[in-house]
Amino acid sequence: MTQIVPVILSGGSGTRLWPLSTDENPKQFLALASERTMFADTLARADDASRFAAPLIIGAERHAALMEAELGGDAYRYARIILEPSARNTAPAIALAALAAGADDTVMLVMPSDHVIRDLHAFVAAVDSALPAAHEGWLVTFGIEPTGPETGFGYIRMGNTLEQAPGVRKVERFIEKPSRDKAEAMLAQGSHAWNAGIFLMRADRYLEELARHASEMEKAARAALDGVDLGARLIRPDGERFAACPSDSIDYAVMERADRVAIVPVSCGWSDVGSWDALAEIASPDGHGNTVAGDAVLIDTRGCHVQVDGITITAAGIKDLIVIANGSHVMILPRGRSQDVKKIVESLKTRPRS
Amino acid sequence: MTQIVPVILSGGSGTRLWPLSTDENPKQFLALASERTMFADTLARADDASRFAAPLIIGAERHAALMEAELGGDAYRYARIILEPSARNTAPAIALAALAAGADDTVMLVMPSDHVIRDLHAFVAAVDSALPAAHEGWLVTFGIEPTGPETGFGYIRMGNTLEQAPGVRKVERFIEKPSRDKAEAMLAQGSHAWNAGIFLMRADRYLEELARHASEMEKAARAALDGVDLGARLIRPDGERFAACPSDSIDYAVMERADRVAIVPVSCGWSDVGSWDALAEIASPDGHGNTVAGDAVLIDTRGCHVQVDGITITAAGIKDLIVIANGSHVMILPRGRSQDVKKIVESLKTRPRS
Repeated sequence: MTQIVPVILSGGSGTRLWPLSTDENPKQFLALASERTMFADTLARADDASRFAAPLIIGAERHAALMEAELGGDAYRYARIILEPSARNTAPAIALAALAAGADDTVMLVMPSDHVIRDLHAFVAAVDSALPAAHEGWLVTFGIEPTGPETGFGYIRMGNTLEQAPGVRKVERFIEKPSRDKAEAMLAQGSHAWNAGIFLMRADRYLEELARHASEMEKAARAALDGVDLGARLIRPDGERFAACPSDSIDYAVMERADRVAIVPVSCGWSDVGSWDALAEIASPDGHGNTVAGDAVLIDTRGCHVQVDGITITAAGIKDLIVIANGSHVMILPRGRSQDVKKIVESLKTRPRS
Repeated sequence: MTQIVPVILSGGSGTRLWPLSTDENPKQFLALASERTMFADTLARADDASRFAAPLIIGAERHAALMEAELGGDAYRYARIILEPSARNTAPAIALAALAAGADDTVMLVMPSDHVIRDLHAFVAAVDSALPAAHEGWLVTFGIEPTGPETGFGYIRMGNTLEQAPGVRKVERFIEKPSRDKAEAMLAQGSHAWNAGIFLMRADRYLEELARHASEMEKAARAALDGVDLGARLIRPDGERFAACPSDSIDYAVMERADRVAIVPVSCGWSDVGSWDALAEIASPDGHGNTVAGDAVLIDTRGCHVQVDGITITAAGIKDLIVIANGSHVMILPRGRSQDVKKIVESLKTRPRS
């Protein structure tokens, strides 16, 4: 049996973890959740040569050096990096990967590079469950068992179990980020999972569905790679041709419309680390409920999340705050308000230069 | 009538305003309360050539460059700086100044260099009231009219008004930093003022009282200046001889024991800026009760004091915090807890080096 090709999406440049995550050095290249970067953790997730082939990375040209740095050493000698000439969201990025993977019955495990999975064993078991269905042509998503009525994720309603594949269920439908009420209803109802944006599927099946539901996208991706050496370490699609490609997510462009879309529910300590609050949730608190990374002196301080690089944070008598700092910016928020990072970043952008 | 010699005490190296104030760059050399440093504000307070002679500064050798920088330009051409070979508290420092001032009936206005006086007019009027008594040989202190039952200051109980000098009262006694109850009792009782550590007195009278009540100190100061050119810009007392001098404050060594000690009560917007809370109190709040100095972006933030140098502070949704930062340290405290700075500084000193 041929090995699975890990396809690692590194196109994000989120500022939800500002000031540590920036467009120049986005979240996946930071060691926020473990001793190494989330990018390195993602690579390590598909490091088992008995299951996985060399990885295919898709990221931005401006992050090429960061990706190369992560892929140093013998272990990733055969890794390839597709440098997107422009950002076109996930559907076109995965199309490039599918074409570079071989455009045949090769199975791809598509993973964002900036998620945390604490229980690798459970995750690998889910991939194993999904594999027969993927070989048969199903586009398999991984559904995270909800732990609360989150409104920040898309949901998937799960249908019947596939006869030929225990643990794999048909997808009934994709549900966009819900209201609080709707999220609670789905949680009560069961049979709904969070959409983690992780997929196991054959390259040819993906391209087939893409051609059916977003043919311009499929054509543009093919054209952009026409004549490009797909065996090279750095794969550079044609910028002009790729610029013609519409921009859309794999969920909207393909998954919601495709035939034979399945889901494997999994509970694997997953987090998209989409905010400082989310990161605080998955960090290990000390005896006072503080989660601290970096140089800090905290006196009589409780329930605070402190993450700092290149400067020292000191505090006394504070509680339930998020304090993030690097050598240029300090950010302070009450816990539970980390969505306000956006407002701060916006305000910094628009204020008059001093 | 000869002019008053301003004697400016710059020996402090307080860490109560850490992290901005440090031993290398103490509070008086920071622009915390106005556009210029408190040292410069103190110099400017005695800048009126019709009343004041050139100033005499007393500070530490290691701050010589900082003091020289403040005394640049023609205006302070005749200023002299006494460089203390070692720190011996205020009584010996003022003894050196009295000897350098002439050790005769020259009147000195002794002022700490790190206090704020908002109402210069009221202060100068108080000096004018005090002057006749000082000429007659009284050691005159300035008593700040209490605005609350502060426990961080010494108090002075005021007695009868001097017959020959309206506005000048006899000092009945000095009272050390009181308990809260005692402070409230004094406030209710009236006739008590805060001891601001500002004095108007003849150099010879100070030395006379010092010789009477702390003769070793007086002798050591004289010996340390023996043969030293008192007309030089930089006056360097003999280190070995000065090292023999006991260390004590003017209050303990002289004022509490001397004859003819008087007080002029004054309400002049005085603050010793002894803490971040004190500084927040005298700063001008914006429409949300925030007092901000330096680069900060505050969203939905109320009642915070933010003071920052060399880095940007951002926050959303916080209230009633003190946030102080420079390029190496950030400090966060609830308002009202700025005495905890000491604990933080201590903790930083004693923690294992990383």
